[in-house]
Amino acid sequence: MSMKLYTAPRAPNPRRVTMFIAEKGIPDIELVPVDLNGGEHRGTAFRARNPVARVPVLELPDGRCLAESRAICTYLEGLHPAPNLMGESVEERAFIEMADRQVELHFFFLVANCIRHTHPGLAVLEQPQFADFGRAQGDRVLEAARVLDEQLARHAWLAGARFTIADITAYCALEFARGLMKFRPGDHGLARLQAYRDRIAERPCAA
Amino acid sequence: MSMKLYTAPRAPNPRRVTMFIAEKGIPDIELVPVDLNGGEHRGTAFRARNPVARVPVLELPDGRCLAESRAICTYLEGLHPAPNLMGESVEERAFIEMADRQVELHFFFLVANCIRHTHPGLAVLEQPQFADFGRAQGDRVLEAARVLDEQLARHAWLAGARFTIADITAYCALEFARGLMKFRPGDHGLARLQAYRDRIAERPCAA
Ligand SMILES: N[C@@H](CCC(=O)N[C@@H](CS)C(=O)NCC(=O)O)C(=O)O
Ligand SMILES: N[C@@H](CCC(=O)N[C@@H](CS)C(=O)NCC(=O)O)C(=O)O
Repeated sequence: MSMKLYTAPRAPNPRRVTMFIAEKGIPDIELVPVDLNGGEHRGTAFRARNPVARVPVLELPDGRCLAESRAICTYLEGLHPAPNLMGESVEERAFIEMADRQVELHFFFLVANCIRHTHPGLAVLEQPQFADFGRAQGDRVLEAARVLDEQLARHAWLAGARFTIADITAYCALEFARGLMKFRPGDHGLARLQAYRDRIAERPCAA
Repeated sequence: MSMKLYTAPRAPNPRRVTMFIAEKGIPDIELVPVDLNGGEHRGTAFRARNPVARVPVLELPDGRCLAESRAICTYLEGLHPAPNLMGESVEERAFIEMADRQVELHFFFLVANCIRHTHPGLAVLEQPQFADFGRAQGDRVLEAARVLDEQLARHAWLAGARFTIADITAYCALEFARGLMKFRPGDHGLARLQAYRDRIAERPCAA
């Protein structure tokens, strides 16, 4: 029996995992779409898989369920070590985790808060929306993008010299911002971040 | 030369790391207080250590800086493997990471958003405060606490049969909520979560 990944089309957190799977070329994970707009993830059946009612969730062949995008990647990295995306030594793992968390918590979350609280298409998930809060979070996106742009002056990828999970998180956040906030780093003079995004867009895993 | 941990008294994220250090009994990490209310962390010197301007940050003997509470714990777990707090096998690591992320992102963040946006003492860090948003996040704390309480019906600790980093994150969040939101799980009928919090409070690492 194969593993199942509960996912939702266009949702950025499941995308982190599907890009990770594609970059590693892991075969045979069945994708099971969850109807977020219909509230399927808030029903009893899905909550038994993930009590906090979010996708993605990976169901193992023995029926156990593993939620949280990054925890799923940790598990899959163990099963499919190559190419390494989360660090070889413990020290490298820690520095990649720092980069991944920073782009998630201090960039992606600003984007997500902005979109969830201001975009009409997210009103079904985020109730009530606090538009003032959302706009203020959106106003901080540029400053946070500038921090990423400066990091890319020092090394080609967010965590250093090679492509890692932090770049997948960054790309999913940048694409979410591009689609629903019309945010393009290049429009704000962040040429390095724009070129970085465009480089990732050409990788097969971003298809 | 020893390692330095940039920290701030009473701040919950540095506390995750200091509890982790205490639970492992790691000696010789120098604590360096950062004046958050005075904005020291937003100055150039601190930003060179952590571009997103947050504590904790661990400075290694060679001068490199590692930010992000959980990434610092990953690093320290590598240096001091016993007692294990983040998982022995890759599979165990993934399930503990799930538990840790869920309590962080789907409980602690509600608490932190509520406090940051409603408490006068946090106005110096969070500008502007969106009180309506903060209160709505606070209203969700009870439901999220109930999810934790239900998990504790199935196993003694958040990630399973033993004390892990997820319990440290939970405790720091619960103590933050107790101090600044006057939130006590026992007042809401969540006896398991209250007993769990009280059990952790008696561990030497919580002193
Ligand atoms: N911390 C979770 C977050 C997952 C998450 O927020 N997923 C979104 C889709 S991108 C979701 O399920 N939203 C449903 C909702 O907000 O009700 C992770 O890293 O997997
Ligand atoms: N994602 C970071 C968050 C750290 C964080 O938010 N720290 C707070 C203290 S608990 C801080 O530095 N606040 C300063 C500010 O908000 O300006 C981590 O896990 O270490």
